[in-house]
Amino acid sequence: MSPKITTELLKQLRQVMKNPRYVQEPVQAYIVPSGDAHQSEYIAPCDCRRAFISGFDGSAGTAIVTEQHAAMWTDGRYFLQAAHQMDSNWTLMKMGLKDTPTQEDWLVSVLPEGSKVGVDPFIIPADQWKRMSKALRSAGHDLVPVKENLIDTIWTDCPQRPCKPLITLDLSYTGVSWRDKIVALRSKMAERKVMWFVVTALDEVAWLFNLRGSDVEYNPVFFAYAVIGMNTIRLFIDGDRMMDPAVREHLQLDSTLEPEFKIQVMPYGSILSELQAVGAGLSPKEKVWLSDKASYALTEAIPKAYRYLTPYTPICIAKAVKNAAETEGMRRAHIKDAVALCELFNWLEKEVPKGTVTEIVAADKAEEFRSQQKDFVELSFATISSTGPNGAIIHYKPVPETNRTLSVNEIYLLDSGAQYKDGTTDVTRTMHFGTPSAYEKECFTYVLKGHIAVSAAIFPNGTKGHLLDSFARSALWDCGLDYLHGTGHGVGSFLNVHEGPCGISYKTFADEPLEAGMIVSDEPGYYEDGSFGIRIENVVLVIPAETKYNFKNRGSLTFEPLTLVPIQTKMIDVNLLTEKERNWVNEYHQRCREVVGAELERQGRHEALRWLLRETEPLARVQ
Amino acid sequence: MSPKITTELLKQLRQVMKNPRYVQEPVQAYIVPSGDAHQSEYIAPCDCRRAFISGFDGSAGTAIVTEQHAAMWTDGRYFLQAAHQMDSNWTLMKMGLKDTPTQEDWLVSVLPEGSKVGVDPFIIPADQWKRMSKALRSAGHDLVPVKENLIDTIWTDCPQRPCKPLITLDLSYTGVSWRDKIVALRSKMAERKVMWFVVTALDEVAWLFNLRGSDVEYNPVFFAYAVIGMNTIRLFIDGDRMMDPAVREHLQLDSTLEPEFKIQVMPYGSILSELQAVGAGLSPKEKVWLSDKASYALTEAIPKAYRYLTPYTPICIAKAVKNAAETEGMRRAHIKDAVALCELFNWLEKEVPKGTVTEIVAADKAEEFRSQQKDFVELSFATISSTGPNGAIIHYKPVPETNRTLSVNEIYLLDSGAQYKDGTTDVTRTMHFGTPSAYEKECFTYVLKGHIAVSAAIFPNGTKGHLLDSFARSALWDCGLDYLHGTGHGVGSFLNVHEGPCGISYKTFADEPLEAGMIVSDEPGYYEDGSFGIRIENVVLVIPAETKYNFKNRGSLTFEPLTLVPIQTKMIDVNLLTEKERNWVNEYHQRCREVVGAELERQGRHEALRWLLRETEPLARVQ
Repeated sequence: MSPKITTELLKQLRQVMKNPRYVQEPVQAYIVPSGDAHQSEYIAPCDCRRAFISGFDGSAGTAIVTEQHAAMWTDGRYFLQAAHQMDSNWTLMKMGLKDTPTQEDWLVSVLPEGSKVGVDPFIIPADQWKRMSKALRSAGHDLVPVKENLIDTIWTDCPQRPCKPLITLDLSYTGVSWRDKIVALRSKMAERKVMWFVVTALDEVAWLFNLRGSDVEYNPVFFAYAVIGMNTIRLFIDGDRMMDPAVREHLQLDSTLEPEFKIQVMPYGSILSELQAVGAGLSPKEKVWLSDKASYALTEAIPKAYRYLTPYTPICIAKAVKNAAETEGMRRAHIKDAVALCELFNWLEKEVPKGTVTEIVAADKAEEFRSQQKDFVELSFATISSTGPNGAIIHYKPVPETNRTLSVNEIYLLDSGAQYKDGTTDVTRTMHFGTPSAYEKECFTYVLKGHIAVSAAIFPNGTKGHLLDSFARSALWDCGLDYLHGTGHGVGSFLNVHEGPCGISYKTFADEPLEAGMIVSDEPGYYEDGSFGIRIENVVLVIPAETKYNFKNRGSLTFEPLTLVPIQTKMIDVNLLTEKERNWVNEYHQRCREVVGAELERQGRHEALRWLLRETEPLARVQ
Repeated sequence: MSPKITTELLKQLRQVMKNPRYVQEPVQAYIVPSGDAHQSEYIAPCDCRRAFISGFDGSAGTAIVTEQHAAMWTDGRYFLQAAHQMDSNWTLMKMGLKDTPTQEDWLVSVLPEGSKVGVDPFIIPADQWKRMSKALRSAGHDLVPVKENLIDTIWTDCPQRPCKPLITLDLSYTGVSWRDKIVALRSKMAERKVMWFVVTALDEVAWLFNLRGSDVEYNPVFFAYAVIGMNTIRLFIDGDRMMDPAVREHLQLDSTLEPEFKIQVMPYGSILSELQAVGAGLSPKEKVWLSDKASYALTEAIPKAYRYLTPYTPICIAKAVKNAAETEGMRRAHIKDAVALCELFNWLEKEVPKGTVTEIVAADKAEEFRSQQKDFVELSFATISSTGPNGAIIHYKPVPETNRTLSVNEIYLLDSGAQYKDGTTDVTRTMHFGTPSAYEKECFTYVLKGHIAVSAAIFPNGTKGHLLDSFARSALWDCGLDYLHGTGHGVGSFLNVHEGPCGISYKTFADEPLEAGMIVSDEPGYYEDGSFGIRIENVVLVIPAETKYNFKNRGSLTFEPLTLVPIQTKMIDVNLLTEKERNWVNEYHQRCREVVGAELERQGRHEALRWLLRETEPLARVQ
């Protein structure tokens, strides 16, 4: 990786920062956040403005350019990568280190008195704007919205915003029609005495209308906003996608409908002016509901007294609780995914000893097997295919420069998943194709014990996921080992592989209580820098549990694994398992045999079936 | 309990709310919070203003009186008690229930437009003022400070503020001189570029100067403030306590000292004017450090731009980490406390079958045995002595109306502790003096498993206590049982039995990471309404642990029990324990035998020693 030369670009940016064509008054600093106007985790190429101006293309980072300086804030995952990708014009600000200034403190230290700091009001979330604006104001500076994105003005070969065809999902996939979702949303709005709801997150728009797209890689979403009133529905979306007869039929655009279900289709770019019109026409006590992560631009369109902001929207919460149709779809998707992985691992067992399988070859092969399955759409994230020391890089993605050949001497970690029309998968397995060392088995077994502790946990209804995080670490902690990431994230239903509002983490973010129907990942790990990485990840469904006393009728919950891929028994030190843990493994493997075995049989994949049967032999009791 | 008749008092209060002698402008509402000017958990009788005006004397509650209404907010622990103690002038606002309005919302709903809401600025913490003031202002009202406390103006027989003699603690108790504590504090101040530090919490003043008092029941503190500058020390304290030669000598008031260690003694009541003088004399960049829980009055004395507010002060954090002298003192105190409890339980075993021992008698007897121990000062909180259904009332304190007789048919729960000059204790044991039922033993054993899970937990340095809370619940959860309180709190060293900044709770408050030397309680429980209560509580010390891999040199921590009182083996269902848990109990009891046995021997308490030996017989392995 050689750094991107940014001298000329920075010169151009500094010119437009003073150009009255773009800014009312010159700005002395310009902030380029990650992210798009919808606060998406994955973004389209046209939104990769921070990567364009700096060269650094990690998933998290904020660039700030002043007349003299250019600085990049990013976290520990990306210190090395950012240092490689950026030229000497840039100063790397290592977040999380004690001496690294915050963006606000740094700005205050370098800016001349009374400076203006510009930012695109569509890209910065309202809560971030508020914090930064306050800090700058108290030091005599001003944060100002710059309507035209200044990076876009100098990005001459900026790719177009994607505008791909839509997929309609019928009731057999979604379980609930978009009309019924609107009815449920309006009832939540009425409860809170809110007249309008603004849908800004792309997965929330997609979920609400039972539509999917492919505007962003890995995430089946499309660029759109929606504004839902008590009697109106406005969908802001571009392109000829609304000309598709299937979409018109699905949204009943040409039917005679009750007016409150008539969808008004409007241009994507008109959201701001339409919302300003809504804001201007509000009567007293008419509130507008927005996520507190919505962009500053949209939030500002509603006068402050009329805003109703919450960290999680009612759509986010409803979306997290999967109904029967979605759950069944997720089950089907995970069975197909398991078939693909049985094929892959069987193939790897034969090919790895030949020394011809690289990380990239293995990742491609995984995709090939998945793509043979019914309703396969695309991958759900960039495959983490890593062997030996690469496995210790938690967010590794093989590229030609780092591509390592799998061997019988190293641990192989594969974290991968796919989007099927009936569900989203995300699974990690750690394998050894030769003979693992005692230490590797020991570490693997602690991780497995943590995985089981979460998966088999029983807890009262209403428990927040972060209260389960330590269960995943306890076995590792007993030996002085730990891992520096959370244990689980919410998973969408043919939607984003990471979704709120629940999760399992030591970080006490504002997670919503777990309830039956929610789907999260369970993925403890252990990483030995320079040697190997271990992670065991299943996607699990929150289900009611049977307990002796049932929490005085509060209700009991536990998890059911949706992922049904064998856990390599060769890596397990059975002596370290309790009887309960050994039984868990054996019952899990029995279920893989029954469910995935039947599907392998049905698909005529006999060799993979034999592999599955061999890999799911029960663990014997050891003395 | 008959309710307090408050008609006349409320009439008087409503008069002074309009009396220009006390208020600049009439106030339409007056807030009477719990608590004193130091945000103490336990308060002196003269500070029980909310109890005086309403009759409700629970530990938590806020009264608001308007021209038409009188309302009391309190939490679930006190719904019944408040309803009993208040007359029909009062409306009970049950906090935590869905339909209960917040104080702000209620005020807005009942007040005429443009109202003034008064509150004593010394009693309301700055962070609460800020929140309430903002809510009222946005509805067109004003929160105003009323300098004279309006309750005091009508409380004709208000007790005097206590002003008891001080105890000086030498190095053998404190390990660090007050001078060295000032030096360490100033170095923390310098790190944060702060010129002044205001000590407002009573236990922080006591700790800083190595002094103790008895102005507040159970808490060995005294009414005082301190303001520490980089070159000055001001102690605000009343009475002739500073005339005591031992105190003068301890504080070196009559010695020739370097000026930066010379303590200026000032009247308690002069804190505000002195702080205002400090505030008025600040140069740019001179900050003043205060807790964000300090009173609004003191916080306002410092202009906003000069304030440096943190949730935990450097004294709070330093105080939590006990040094060798304090730890040794705590050990000694816990051995003496165990001697007293062995005597008590031996006595109860003989007396309970006679049917003459009530909850109050048992509590008094516990105090009698404790008071026989060296350096005993007082109890550390009101003894919870509860049998049968009373045990299910978590904050029960026996009074004549509820006083139940202990019997061989009911579970007895004793949660008690004392202040000794060398340390503070807090221990809960649950006993049966007859034959417990299988269900009682089952529940007790789950609680014990939870207690052991926390006590034996190993975790990396820097772990916050709330991450350990679920360990205490896991065994209960497996059977559908839970308890609705946190698992542990910080414990002072001959100071408050509840202290910050660490604890073990499912509530994600801003707890500081655990480190070696911190002392917390480990007290899971289970409560069956109307039947019984179970709790097993030890005070435990955070100590370094030995682990195989030591978290890549981050360091390992675990707990060492300081409490050494037998856990009744009769209540344990040994079949439910793992081998590791059984070993824990046996090792714990072995340690009780050795350490407490030796002390019982030394004190010639042979009968209690025989009881201890019998109660600490090893648990046998069961098949």
